[in-house]
Amino acid sequence: MRQILLNAFDMATPGHIQQGMWTHPRDRSAEYTRLSYWVELAQLLERGLFDGLFLADILGVYDVYDGSPDAALRGAVQMPLLDPMLLVPAMAAATRHLGFGITCNVAYEPPYLFARRMSTLDHLTCGRIGWNVVTGYLDSAARALGYAPQMRHDDRYDFAEEFLQVAYALWEAGWDRDAVQRDAAGRIYAETAKIHRIKQDGKQFRIDAMHLCENSPQRTPVLYQAGASDRGRAFAARHAECVFVNGSSPAIVKTLVADLRARATPRHILVFVGATVVTGRTASEARDRLADYATHADREATLAHASASLGIDLARYGMDDPVDADAAQSQAIRSNIEVMAKMAGPGWTKRKLLEQSVLGSRQPPIVGPPAHVADALQAWVTQADVDGFNLSRTVMPECLRDFIDLVVPELQSRGIYKTGYAAGTYRAKLFGGGDVLAAPHPAALLRSGRSDRH
Amino acid sequence: MRQILLNAFDMATPGHIQQGMWTHPRDRSAEYTRLSYWVELAQLLERGLFDGLFLADILGVYDVYDGSPDAALRGAVQMPLLDPMLLVPAMAAATRHLGFGITCNVAYEPPYLFARRMSTLDHLTCGRIGWNVVTGYLDSAARALGYAPQMRHDDRYDFAEEFLQVAYALWEAGWDRDAVQRDAAGRIYAETAKIHRIKQDGKQFRIDAMHLCENSPQRTPVLYQAGASDRGRAFAARHAECVFVNGSSPAIVKTLVADLRARATPRHILVFVGATVVTGRTASEARDRLADYATHADREATLAHASASLGIDLARYGMDDPVDADAAQSQAIRSNIEVMAKMAGPGWTKRKLLEQSVLGSRQPPIVGPPAHVADALQAWVTQADVDGFNLSRTVMPECLRDFIDLVVPELQSRGIYKTGYAAGTYRAKLFGGGDVLAAPHPAALLRSGRSDRH
Repeated sequence: MRQILLNAFDMATPGHIQQGMWTHPRDRSAEYTRLSYWVELAQLLERGLFDGLFLADILGVYDVYDGSPDAALRGAVQMPLLDPMLLVPAMAAATRHLGFGITCNVAYEPPYLFARRMSTLDHLTCGRIGWNVVTGYLDSAARALGYAPQMRHDDRYDFAEEFLQVAYALWEAGWDRDAVQRDAAGRIYAETAKIHRIKQDGKQFRIDAMHLCENSPQRTPVLYQAGASDRGRAFAARHAECVFVNGSSPAIVKTLVADLRARATPRHILVFVGATVVTGRTASEARDRLADYATHADREATLAHASASLGIDLARYGMDDPVDADAAQSQAIRSNIEVMAKMAGPGWTKRKLLEQSVLGSRQPPIVGPPAHVADALQAWVTQADVDGFNLSRTVMPECLRDFIDLVVPELQSRGIYKTGYAAGTYRAKLFGGGDVLAAPHPAALLRSGRSDRH
Repeated sequence: MRQILLNAFDMATPGHIQQGMWTHPRDRSAEYTRLSYWVELAQLLERGLFDGLFLADILGVYDVYDGSPDAALRGAVQMPLLDPMLLVPAMAAATRHLGFGITCNVAYEPPYLFARRMSTLDHLTCGRIGWNVVTGYLDSAARALGYAPQMRHDDRYDFAEEFLQVAYALWEAGWDRDAVQRDAAGRIYAETAKIHRIKQDGKQFRIDAMHLCENSPQRTPVLYQAGASDRGRAFAARHAECVFVNGSSPAIVKTLVADLRARATPRHILVFVGATVVTGRTASEARDRLADYATHADREATLAHASASLGIDLARYGMDDPVDADAAQSQAIRSNIEVMAKMAGPGWTKRKLLEQSVLGSRQPPIVGPPAHVADALQAWVTQADVDGFNLSRTVMPECLRDFIDLVVPELQSRGIYKTGYAAGTYRAKLFGGGDVLAAPHPAALLRSGRSDRH
């Protein structure tokens, strides 16, 4: 039976996807600045045998709605926001198997230093690091960093491509497999002939350096990507090992998944779809939970988030005015608009968006007792051919505790969820193969030039 | 009685200061890629009531000696090397009081993202973060990052000055003290009128951004600096709260300390001097330890490290040729050369340098039983007017365990070392005052423009 993979989808901020949930009296997400909050979360996820914790990130404030950041700041919509990388070491020290998928934008930092950060995390976690490669889409982030305007959509992918080439070279071609001798008697830590200078003189990056780190267990972290545009899919097909997709129904997502798999052939990719689950021991308990949570949804924060994601200032529309999707400020987020149009139909209105956003986001929740949730998840797998889910949070950590205590046993009893972790690195766990990328992935090809670099 | 402050001085690499010690059979520093190694170190230091762990960093390979990185890589001289920031969260989760002084180079990363990293660490550690501000001096680092050549010495300080102005603005002037309401009933996480856009259009940096993080306990981390040149001292006097100095004798360091204190007036700065201690229950036990350790000193690695620090290729000198200090490749490290000349006298030779480097560095160890070590440390405090020590590692972790088990009780019995931690943040512990910087520090001045920003 096909096994379902599970990530918790989170962000180091009070308001991630379901806006307003931080105001629920049992929600603890406003404790996001405490290490103990994250350590307990990681331990909870490991108890639930989750494959990973997927951490989102964004580098600017959401200021499209009403041309101002006010609503986003008032509602804590993905700001304030900590650096997700720095949460990992403490969580890794408290767990043994949980993977960590960290979102990092390639646009603003030199690959030489980024590569060291990822190698450091891969060492410290014993090979449990994944990287969600994003190129950013917010004008506010570009302005924040002294660039204006935001790079054009396709240019951003060219930039990312070059960034990856440099990072791959550092990770895969820098240190031969047997470069480190650690020979105390001979006083040889590393054999310098087996450590290679990485030189590149590209359009965006010049580098002439040895990678600062010896090889970490996975070398290149497990690569996630979430681009849904045509260019984004081509990029994902070339680079990603795991792809994160969104969509309101299996029928809509099915086409996207089939396209991604066809483009990636012969590489096998894993596809995770975003999902929100509200469960309870009975149908009425689940409905009550939903009704309780829904009273905490923040409509203004929802609109602030949606406006930024869609590039459309929804403050300029009446509740029943059809939203003009062509008004979107940027090519960059056309794929979000397409998803919205597919979810809500053409000529959708603000009222329609808010009606759908029962918990404060456009992602409709799966609501019901464990058997119903398991049915719904299975339907996704069967109908849309996805491999697993990125579970958004609602009221934290109770939403995950409910899921783990109620839904996980149901999935296990159906034989579609593991009852223990496999051994090995994040990559080995996810794909059942080796710790490092294999050909024909472009990173692996950089390594295979020499037989001693495997 | 004046209290002695203590930092452990370390680096996430097998070979930090005393080159070759990783080859000792009891040394564990080659385990630097394991989280448990760092967690145990932090717990050991907290048992010894150390004020902080000071982590060095460098962004290039040492390739001055013989015009090649071979000797440095063979001897693991500060490479391979992990990112020091990422060690902190796991250590912070396992301790309550220990401070963390992290070296970060301002030259290659945007202050907007750096400021978020530091704020994140300050949040996660509950205000136990310090930052050693460095500008870098290695041509290999500049080349690695696509710059050539290295910026000139004084330009680097101008660059750092501008970087600090941006970082201070984000930390101190971004969010008013009462910007965060966390008002669940009113659905107000933060009051946007109290969050300020930081705009700067400088020579090096353009920024137009709100700081991504709400205020952390210390806002600006405790500021360390280690520049010994004239320009470096001026920079330290303006910015640093703690200054790290080196020198072989109290007489030599005394002048430097007096100059730093005079320049910093009216601000009170804390001065830490580098020290290496080898102790034992008796004088003969300490001497035996030294003799044992000394057999593991790596002369070639010592020369590789010294060549890079001095900017002089020592491979080109015979053992007894006077080294021509004017041959140094760069202005940047003249201060290191001056220290060397003061230590070894004018016309010093490679033989002299190696004779001094009994444990693999130019820093002469203090060797003896606890009373002797305490006398020597007290002499430093009295004669050179330093406040404490950055203790280099030799054989790890036994050198620290010895110090904590033997020397710390001796210092305590003399009334010159604390018997418990004070409450509060790193800054409050070190200075006995508030959590945030006070006027006339330039960072505090950015905050004091508005009465509600204290």
